Amino acid sequence: MTDHAAERGLTLRLAELAVALPVGERLHADVIAQAWADTIAVSAAAVGQQGLRDIRSAVLGQHASSLWLATGPQRADDAALLNGTAAHFLDFDDVSPSMPLHPSAVLVPALMAAESHGELRFDRFAEAFNVGSAMFRYIAEALPSEEHYGRGWHSTATVGRVAAVAAIARYRRLSAEVTANALGMASSMASGSRVNFGTMTKPLHAGLAARDALHAVEWSEAGVTASTTELESKGGFFSRFGTADAAGLAETVEARFTHWVEEWPSDWGLKRYPSCYGTHRPIDAALELRALVPAEQVARVEVEIYRGGSAPLTPRPPEAGTEAKFSLEYCTALAWLRGNVALLDFADAHFAADRAEVAALASRISLREVDGEGEFAHVTVFAADGGSHHRTVTLTKGSGGNPMGPSELQAKLRSCLEFAGVAGGERLLAGADGYSPEQDLIQIAAELRLETGS
Amino acid sequence: MTDHAAERGLTLRLAELAVALPVGERLHADVIAQAWADTIAVSAAAVGQQGLRDIRSAVLGQHASSLWLATGPQRADDAALLNGTAAHFLDFDDVSPSMPLHPSAVLVPALMAAESHGELRFDRFAEAFNVGSAMFRYIAEALPSEEHYGRGWHSTATVGRVAAVAAIARYRRLSAEVTANALGMASSMASGSRVNFGTMTKPLHAGLAARDALHAVEWSEAGVTASTTELESKGGFFSRFGTADAAGLAETVEARFTHWVEEWPSDWGLKRYPSCYGTHRPIDAALELRALVPAEQVARVEVEIYRGGSAPLTPRPPEAGTEAKFSLEYCTALAWLRGNVALLDFADAHFAADRAEVAALASRISLREVDGEGEFAHVTVFAADGGSHHRTVTLTKGSGGNPMGPSELQAKLRSCLEFAGVAGGERLLAGADGYSPEQDLIQIAAELRLETGS
Repeated sequence: MTDHAAERGLTLRLAELAVALPVGERLHADVIAQAWADTIAVSAAAVGQQGLRDIRSAVLGQHASSLWLATGPQRADDAALLNGTAAHFLDFDDVSPSMPLHPSAVLVPALMAAESHGELRFDRFAEAFNVGSAMFRYIAEALPSEEHYGRGWHSTATVGRVAAVAAIARYRRLSAEVTANALGMASSMASGSRVNFGTMTKPLHAGLAARDALHAVEWSEAGVTASTTELESKGGFFSRFGTADAAGLAETVEARFTHWVEEWPSDWGLKRYPSCYGTHRPIDAALELRALVPAEQVARVEVEIYRGGSAPLTPRPPEAGTEAKFSLEYCTALAWLRGNVALLDFADAHFAADRAEVAALASRISLREVDGEGEFAHVTVFAADGGSHHRTVTLTKGSGGNPMGPSELQAKLRSCLEFAGVAGGERLLAGADGYSPEQDLIQIAAELRLETGS
Repeated sequence: MTDHAAERGLTLRLAELAVALPVGERLHADVIAQAWADTIAVSAAAVGQQGLRDIRSAVLGQHASSLWLATGPQRADDAALLNGTAAHFLDFDDVSPSMPLHPSAVLVPALMAAESHGELRFDRFAEAFNVGSAMFRYIAEALPSEEHYGRGWHSTATVGRVAAVAAIARYRRLSAEVTANALGMASSMASGSRVNFGTMTKPLHAGLAARDALHAVEWSEAGVTASTTELESKGGFFSRFGTADAAGLAETVEARFTHWVEEWPSDWGLKRYPSCYGTHRPIDAALELRALVPAEQVARVEVEIYRGGSAPLTPRPPEAGTEAKFSLEYCTALAWLRGNVALLDFADAHFAADRAEVAALASRISLREVDGEGEFAHVTVFAADGGSHHRTVTLTKGSGGNPMGPSELQAKLRSCLEFAGVAGGERLLAGADGYSPEQDLIQIAAELRLETGS
C-alpha cells in the first residue's frame, strides 16, 4: 500500500479513499442525526439576526431566494454560502475538541447544496458526512493543526474546503480522478484569517468554504483542470499551510484516513451553551456547584484553566450581549444565577436587564492560567459561611466522552427554534434521536418554514 | 505622517490613500488606454477556446448570460469571474516585469463589473485603475513578492484581491472605513496556488480575484463587518503571506504608495507574443538575428539566461500547441522561421502542420542558465558559413522601457480579434492610442459582439 500510495500521490490516494473506502451506510448514524439536527437548529436560530440578513441581502440583491429550502429559484452556490454562514453565525455549531474545527457548518450546507434533485436521503447523506468528517480530521492532524491555526489561518475554512470536496465527491459518486482534480482546485481557494474573528467575516468563512467546495466539484465535473498532485507538491497545500512532510504522509495516508472514518465521533462534540467554547468547562462546573453553594452565598470563585486557554476570551466586563459570550466570568456567573446559559441571555434586552446582577457575581470570579496536562478548568467556590467546594472539568458537556442526554439535546434544539420563532420542527426534533435511512433531509428542513424576508 | 500612520493602522492608511490620494484624471491615460484595449482583445481571443467555454457553462449552468457585455441578465459577480478568467486564459495579458503580476486581468474585469449603471467613463476608470495598479505593486513589493511567490502563492490572485478592492473603492468613492473593512474581508479570501500553473485553474485565479474583490466591497457596503487592521496584525495578511515588518511598512506607506501611483507604468508591459514570458527575450533576439542569419543557414544557437529563468519553461520538445508556449527552443525557432510568434502558431492544426520544420531548427538551439545581473538573454547564432552573431536582450519588447510602437500594438490587437473571429472592434482599436475622458468603455467592449453561445 505504501508503494501504491507513493506511486499515485497523496492527492489521488485521498481522492480514492474518499470515493471508495467502505464506510457502511449506517455507520455513526446516531451521531450524524444529532449533528444534522443541531446544525439546522442553530442555523434557524441565526436567521432572525440582522447581521445575517445584511449578508443575505448583499449576496442575493434583488433575487427572490430562501435559506435552507431546496425548492425555489435560488442557486445552489448561493445556498451553500448563506446556509454555511447561518450555521456558524451564532458560534453555537458543533466542534472538534482536539482541533480548532467546526465541521458541520461546512459539511451540512455543502452536502445539502450538492443535492440537485431536491431529495437528500439520510443514508446517503450519512455516508458522505462520514467521509467529510474523516477528511476534516485527517487534514487538520497532518498540517498539523496547531501550527496552521497558530499562523493565523481559520482551519474551519481552509481545511473545510478540502473536507467538503471529499464529502460532495462521495455523495455524487465521482471518480478518483475527478475528485483529485477538485481537491487541487479547492486548494487554490483555501483561505480565511483568524484576525477576522469577532466580525461577521468569521461566520462567512464557513459559507465561503461550503460554496467553494461545491464550485470545485462542479467545475471539475465540467472538465476544468487543476493539479492532481496539489496537496503534496512543493508549494502545495501542506507546504503553504503547514509543515507536514509529504513523504511521511504518503506512507500513513490509508491508516490515518481509515482511523478517522472510524473514530471521528470521539473527536466531536455539540456545544451546549451559545458562548465561546472556552467558557464551557467553567459553566459545566458552575451548574454542579450551584447546588452546593447558591449564588447569594458565593463569596468568591477561583477558576484555573490551561495555558493559552484564555486567548479567545475577553478580559474586561462586557458591554454588549455579543461581547458577553466571550467573558468567562460573565458566563460562569450567568450559569450560577440562572441554572443555564441560553441564546436569550445574550439578546440585547435580556443582557441589559440582567447585566447588573450578573456583573455583581462575575466581579467575585477570578481567572488565571496554570500549568497542567491537556485542557481543563479547575473551579473552586468559597462560600460566605467559610466552606469551599471544588470541581475539575476536562470533557465539556456535549463532547463525545460526555455527551448530552436526549432530553438535553432536545432542550437545546427547542430553544433554537423558539429563539427563531419558527414553527414546524416536529420531524427535526424527533429525528435527533435517529432518522430512518430513506428520510429526506431537505424536506425536513423545509418544514421549518423559516421566515426569509429581509 | 509617521505618527498618523501608526495611529490609524496600515489597513486604514492604505484605505485612505486608495480613496483620497490625488491621482489626476488623465494621469497615465495613454498607458491605461493600451492596458484596457489589450486586456479586452486578449479576452476576446480566448472566448472561442473550449476550456473557457467549459468554465462558462459550469459557472452559469442554464442561465443565459454574456461575457464582456454590460447589458443583459448576468450577475456582476459572474461577469467578474468569467471575464477575469478570459483575460488570463491565453497568458497573453499584461505583466509587471519586476514582480510576478498580471495586473489588468484582475483590475479590468473587477472595475467593469463594479459599474452597475452600465456606463463606464474612461476618466473614472483610469483614476481607479491607477489606484489599483499602485496597490498591486505596493503590496507585492512589501510582502516581498519573491518570498511570497517562492512559497507557492500565485501573487496575481492573492495580491490581486487587495489591489482590486482598492480600485473598486476608488471608483465607487467609498469612505476609508468601508474600504478598510473591505480590505480586511478580501484578505480572508486571498488564495491561489502556483502548483496549479499549467492547468485551467491558473486563469481561473484571476477571475476569482476579481469576483472576490467585488464581493468584499459590496458586502462591506451592505454592513458586513471585518477586521480593519487585518493587513498589519499578527496573523494578518502580511504575516500569513510574507515576511514584511508591519511597523516598517507603517512608516513608509504614504511614500511608497505615492511612488507607485506615479511610477507603476515603469514596471508594466504588454506581452508581444502569446507564449510564456520567459521565452520573450530570446524571441526578441531571434527577430533581429534572422535578418543576419536566415533559418536555413543556422548551424546552431546558444541561449544563456539568468539563474532561475528556466523554471517556468518545459525542457522537452512539446507535443501539443499549449505545451509549445512553454518551450523556449520551440518559440525561438518559430520566431526565426516565421518572423513572428502568433496565436495561430499554437492552435492545434497549425502546430501539427509546422511541428516538424520548427522542431528541426529547435533541436539546434541550446539553453543554459548563467550568472549575471538582473534578467537577460544572451543569444549567439553560429552560421553554416562559420560566422557568428550575438544579441543580448534585457528589456522585452512591450515593456515600459522598450514599448511596442503604435503599429505593433495595433497588429497585436487585430490578431486577437481575428483569432476570435469577432467583428466590430473599430473603436477598440482606435482607442488604443487614447480614449477621450467621457468615452464609455462598456459600450466599446459591447461593440465587439462576442459570440457567447456554448
